Amino acid sequence: MDGESDDRHPGLHSEQRWHPSWAPFRGMGWDEFSGMEASEKVPLFTRDGRIYDCLFAQQFDRRLLDRLCRVADKLRSITKTRDGDMFVGSLLFDKRAILVFNQPSSRTFLSFQNACHILGMKTSEIRDVSTSSFAKGESDNDSVRTFSSYVHLMIMRMKEPGLVEKTAWHLNSGTNRPVPVINAGSGTDQHPTQALLDVYTMERCLEGGIDGKCIVMVGDLKRGRTVRSLSYMMRNYKGVSITYVSPEQFRMGKDILDFLDRHGIKYSETDDF
Amino acid sequence: MDGESDDRHPGLHSEQRWHPSWAPFRGMGWDEFSGMEASEKVPLFTRDGRIYDCLFAQQFDRRLLDRLCRVADKLRSITKTRDGDMFVGSLLFDKRAILVFNQPSSRTFLSFQNACHILGMKTSEIRDVSTSSFAKGESDNDSVRTFSSYVHLMIMRMKEPGLVEKTAWHLNSGTNRPVPVINAGSGTDQHPTQALLDVYTMERCLEGGIDGKCIVMVGDLKRGRTVRSLSYMMRNYKGVSITYVSPEQFRMGKDILDFLDRHGIKYSETDDF
Amino acid sequence: MDGESDDRHPGLHSEQRWHPSWAPFRGMGWDEFSGMEASEKVPLFTRDGRIYDCLFAQQFDRRLLDRLCRVADKLRSITKTRDGDMFVGSLLFDKRAILVFNQPSSRTFLSFQNACHILGMKTSEIRDVSTSSFAKGESDNDSVRTFSSYVHLMIMRMKEPGLVEKTAWHLNSGTNRPVPVINAGSGTDQHPTQALLDVYTMERCLEGGIDGKCIVMVGDLKRGRTVRSLSYMMRNYKGVSITYVSPEQFRMGKDILDFLDRHGIKYSETDDF
Repeated sequence: MDGESDDRHPGLHSEQRWHPSWAPFRGMGWDEFSGMEASEKVPLFTRDGRIYDCLFAQQFDRRLLDRLCRVADKLRSITKTRDGDMFVGSLLFDKRAILVFNQPSSRTFLSFQNACHILGMKTSEIRDVSTSSFAKGESDNDSVRTFSSYVHLMIMRMKEPGLVEKTAWHLNSGTNRPVPVINAGSGTDQHPTQALLDVYTMERCLEGGIDGKCIVMVGDLKRGRTVRSLSYMMRNYKGVSITYVSPEQFRMGKDILDFLDRHGIKYSETDDF
Repeated sequence: MDGESDDRHPGLHSEQRWHPSWAPFRGMGWDEFSGMEASEKVPLFTRDGRIYDCLFAQQFDRRLLDRLCRVADKLRSITKTRDGDMFVGSLLFDKRAILVFNQPSSRTFLSFQNACHILGMKTSEIRDVSTSSFAKGESDNDSVRTFSSYVHLMIMRMKEPGLVEKTAWHLNSGTNRPVPVINAGSGTDQHPTQALLDVYTMERCLEGGIDGKCIVMVGDLKRGRTVRSLSYMMRNYKGVSITYVSPEQFRMGKDILDFLDRHGIKYSETDDF
Repeated sequence: MDGESDDRHPGLHSEQRWHPSWAPFRGMGWDEFSGMEASEKVPLFTRDGRIYDCLFAQQFDRRLLDRLCRVADKLRSITKTRDGDMFVGSLLFDKRAILVFNQPSSRTFLSFQNACHILGMKTSEIRDVSTSSFAKGESDNDSVRTFSSYVHLMIMRMKEPGLVEKTAWHLNSGTNRPVPVINAGSGTDQHPTQALLDVYTMERCLEGGIDGKCIVMVGDLKRGRTVRSLSYMMRNYKGVSITYVSPEQFRMGKDILDFLDRHGIKYSETDDF
């Protein structure tokens, strides 16, 4: 009807506009992109110095972790009063999130949904999204792109490894209206927000915080995506050592152990619980 | 407890009150009603000059289509700012909608749900409503009537042809508290709101709008309820011609072709894509 | 991070704090607790003279029933205007409820969900909660406790008898952050809120209210949890007599008949409809 420019809803005839940081990766396929080092990807999922897509633990440095812990403390304090609750509930009152889960998880789902509600966001959900064509490597998942156009934020939990990151990659590099994507659990690779919760709990409960502590992680370390994300985050704390306890067949993956070696973090492994 | 009159929640002893326009149809059964011409039905689903139940494409005239396109433009403009989003989100803040879908459709469902949220409405949903007794012709579907009593608006997608219209008929003629019904896809007959989207897109993207254009519709035209609704709406534009492209077994229904003939709209059919 | 005291979110190291009224029941198992008389339990599910957990009909006395009817009248009156709707929608705007249903019920579910929305509450839901371990008598159902930590109110419908009450017992006696629990239908034992609706309807529609009336209850009285709850509530009205009509195998339970005998309420039974 009109020919005006619209930053949020580009005219249908407008050229696709890539975020400048993605320009060099225009035309790069997913296989090539996904093989890049995390350190190369971090800037791409960052905007104006802040995390845009929250995908993996390597995106968090000490400054940010400390800041998030302070914000969490502040929110706990503010929401002790009704006025505080009302204020927090107005922060994102004009925003909408969609939860895209293809892996059942009542706790994670309800936790994210209520977190949205606390901040005033409206939520919708899709639990049975067919991701098969997307997972097989097709470049344009029309469903995910369509869902993203309804909302301001996508929260995704996918049983397929890498599929959450692939969605963020696709929205950033293959569409002209990306929205932030939060990884609420991806395959067996990462679960960064649950690791954030563990970091906050340890910072809050351990005398002197995480620095200098010995952290023991027990269980199925091979497929435990939260302990993987948490191990990455330990890089940010001084003098931490990790003890991994698991049966032989559920040992922590070599990629994590290599990461710890590279960053000089002491660890040991045992099956003796 | 009290004997006061209450327009919205009539006392339980009060006589059923029919909207005056429905008076002549009191006692008419569904079979007879559903056989009436669309032009006879349009006034019944209208209140105070505005569409009350949004059921089929024949309810839309040019004046209304133009107005809806202008409103859509205005909403896009208003919601470029947070203040605008907050304003739009307050418009129906005190209203509640229910989405009654017995046919899976993530896109249509999420689109309507987020549209409600944008306007500030709260939503609830029912996906497995048993409509068998209703579909079989019983006059009083207690479930649908009960659901309607919880909300201000029903958005329905039904796989059975005519069932959305039947619900609106039932609420208007057989209950004393109708709520508006929006057809979000009904059997193979109509899908008027998706046709509205197509109209808006064409008006917005085609130089000079729809008037005088040749529209090509391709695919399963026999069961494609959106192309059926869109064909009806083409009556409102000047000098439009339509080309239907489909395999022989999926040709556009004769009722639509007859409609086009009656309104002097040129069309052709081909299976040569 | 800090060591401050926090009434709503106790520090992780803090001792569990039981509500004083629960102190004598600390350490009492569920089997023993559930065998107690309703009259002994009522004070435990009460806080500051008001019902905290709404679990069974015996919690309602005449003063409260009359008050609830007046509040319902008032709400009907207030919500005749948009300003009234907006006011009511602000009452619990900062609160969140979860609906935990393991028994399908569209009407009850949608009724509670829309009631929450009318009062401004945000809702989340869980329909497939695994209650097997909880039902088997384990003292700590981690799922239910976790869900309760996300919200201010739990609305539960459970097919297992006693499971709703058990949840309230568990949150009050075994956690340090109980939230109120509303029984939206529990096994075959009680459905107090639906009985409240019947009380309100009778008070509103019967000349002179319920006092002195003969109430006829018809159907499957053995498993009809609403007629059971309603029978308990009849204790609060003067000169009520009840006629139970059912086939022999669906007669009202002896516990209810004993209750009526104890409170001098006349009743008769018949299978002659």
